[in-house]
Amino acid sequence: MRRLAAVVSAGMSKIGRRPELVSRELVVEAFMDAWREVRNLDRKDIGCVYVGSQSETYEHQIMYGTMVADWLGLLPKGSMRVEGCAAAGALAFRLAVMDVLSGLHEIVLACGVEKMSLRTTSQVTDALMAASDAALEQYNGLTFPSIYAMMTTAHMAKYGSTEEDLAAVAVKNHRNASLNPKAHIQKQITKEDVLSSKVVAWPLKVYDSSLISDGAAVVIVTRPEIAKRFTDTPTYVVGMGHKSDTLGLYAREDISWPSAVAEACSEAYSMAGIGADDVSLAEVHDCFTINEILAYEAAGFAHRGEGHMLIREGQPEISAKIPVNPSGGLKARGHPVGATGLCQIYEIHTQLTCRAGKRQVPSPKLGLAINEGGSNSVVATHIIST
Amino acid sequence: MRRLAAVVSAGMSKIGRRPELVSRELVVEAFMDAWREVRNLDRKDIGCVYVGSQSETYEHQIMYGTMVADWLGLLPKGSMRVEGCAAAGALAFRLAVMDVLSGLHEIVLACGVEKMSLRTTSQVTDALMAASDAALEQYNGLTFPSIYAMMTTAHMAKYGSTEEDLAAVAVKNHRNASLNPKAHIQKQITKEDVLSSKVVAWPLKVYDSSLISDGAAVVIVTRPEIAKRFTDTPTYVVGMGHKSDTLGLYAREDISWPSAVAEACSEAYSMAGIGADDVSLAEVHDCFTINEILAYEAAGFAHRGEGHMLIREGQPEISAKIPVNPSGGLKARGHPVGATGLCQIYEIHTQLTCRAGKRQVPSPKLGLAINEGGSNSVVATHIIST
Repeated sequence: MRRLAAVVSAGMSKIGRRPELVSRELVVEAFMDAWREVRNLDRKDIGCVYVGSQSETYEHQIMYGTMVADWLGLLPKGSMRVEGCAAAGALAFRLAVMDVLSGLHEIVLACGVEKMSLRTTSQVTDALMAASDAALEQYNGLTFPSIYAMMTTAHMAKYGSTEEDLAAVAVKNHRNASLNPKAHIQKQITKEDVLSSKVVAWPLKVYDSSLISDGAAVVIVTRPEIAKRFTDTPTYVVGMGHKSDTLGLYAREDISWPSAVAEACSEAYSMAGIGADDVSLAEVHDCFTINEILAYEAAGFAHRGEGHMLIREGQPEISAKIPVNPSGGLKARGHPVGATGLCQIYEIHTQLTCRAGKRQVPSPKLGLAINEGGSNSVVATHIIST
Repeated sequence: MRRLAAVVSAGMSKIGRRPELVSRELVVEAFMDAWREVRNLDRKDIGCVYVGSQSETYEHQIMYGTMVADWLGLLPKGSMRVEGCAAAGALAFRLAVMDVLSGLHEIVLACGVEKMSLRTTSQVTDALMAASDAALEQYNGLTFPSIYAMMTTAHMAKYGSTEEDLAAVAVKNHRNASLNPKAHIQKQITKEDVLSSKVVAWPLKVYDSSLISDGAAVVIVTRPEIAKRFTDTPTYVVGMGHKSDTLGLYAREDISWPSAVAEACSEAYSMAGIGADDVSLAEVHDCFTINEILAYEAAGFAHRGEGHMLIREGQPEISAKIPVNPSGGLKARGHPVGATGLCQIYEIHTQLTCRAGKRQVPSPKLGLAINEGGSNSVVATHIIST
């Protein structure tokens, strides 16, 4: 198993509605969280910063790369922002790994941030819709809840998944988040709470939907050979996948199957030389509950068309066969869009180094992160090992 | 001189107001321009696509990476958008080079695109201002013309540059663009035209300002060792620089000196093992005429404070000592913001392969591209050799 790069430290802000902080301050909070865990490292050693962020709309700000380099005292080092809607965080992480692999720099920073709570829900829905096809989807009045609702009804009709199955995902993820002090929501919910919550786009309800959150996460990446200079407990990137699907849902053969997710998982497994059975835990992209069920199938935790059986059997619970979203996921840990992919890496690093407290997965060895943007239109996956 | 990567082919759309095409169609036009010059290459061989684009505002579209992968028939390959305002194009190119260097892929595509003409000038000004500091500059009513005007008056006061010097840059770049069939404007202008044009933010006038353009450019990048499979005339990336400055102008010691530009040039020269005297031609970021004069100094074509002397002496003309912006530059070739950095690489590849027609620089060996975003807040430089 080839180590592509090492994670020296990961940090995350408290996720939630953070009216007291703007995006640059959220980044500082996340950075300090990571920084206090490293040694023998000066900020001058950081060669470049890659920042994932979704929208210029929320704060009328682009150039997040430069903003982060400036506010973290990393000038004059290079910086850039990367965007793939909700996959921006994992794409920033991918670039950090690629930079180290290329030999351009020894130590780089990946960062993700979003400040969403300044805007109303309808403004956020509009900003997110920019990730759908402007010419052919937005024009016809689609929103992401309605896009994911179509995927859901297709899966239900074809495979017999139910509203109760979706609800079970939400219940699990809220339970996990109740054990995560940095999660947006710590409130446990029942299946009945989900099923009786307001319908957004049938069969998806409020409690099937992820949160509108403020938050930031950062990961310090270096060459595997030098990682132990900076920490006793590095983790290692051993597999990566990166795939795209059509921008618009209308162009796909089977909307009950997230083909780019499956392909990005296969690519990462193949690079790491492992299979789905080797994974100890996964953080997956549950922007809506259906998408966690689709991820079970795409990641190979369940056969195609049988993802809902996995949750019925309780297998994705923290103490069960394949813990999925121990952090609480986008559903309850929260979904600061451009940061989400790095919140996933933060969780996996935290779990693999056994610092996850009450939500700790027992002795994990390999973690899989699946981060997706648009209608699962761009996907970046990472496999991280102890 | 180490070859980091090879440019196999470069393509560019006609730049200008293109009401008949949306961004995805501009990309197709640029791609076909590049594609017809290569051999032994199937689209399936392209491993990843990096797309530079500035704003989601112009077409209410993000996920340009996926859009381009989809519309060019590159699915399911990975894709992402990179943003650094007007530096997005060069950052996409940098990532393409880094990808090849890392060994992840053998052949990748860098693409830049912007579709600006759907919006009014004030809407474009507003979208661009998102690249300034939202909290501390936009709030106080700054615009980019006023930011660059402050740099200009600082340079004038300190070094004695004049409005005539600025005008001379515009006259040269319009003359060059008149020889470039793909330029936004082919019209030659006189010094008097510039000096009598409407003041935007004194001393900058309409003719000191770059254009609001639609356009796209693509570059196909591969490993140097295999480049000649695909073309007889590859060019090679031999140096790269990438630096940041403060997001806000207010935080700088000397606003008459673009320090990140100078540092990014030094980094690229050092990587290539060359000096300014070795450069055969340069494409620089003349978003306003002052910025070309600052680039002369930062690139070492002139001493600090003496950039305006270079244009007085006619040295940046196509047939003179150091041809700068033979394409016509942002000023007259046009400035489709996210594409501009790749339009520069297109021009240098075209010049180095002696296909530049009436604007051909005599026997060039080494080209320098300087692409900048914000208030010269992020800078990516590239040195390309025959």
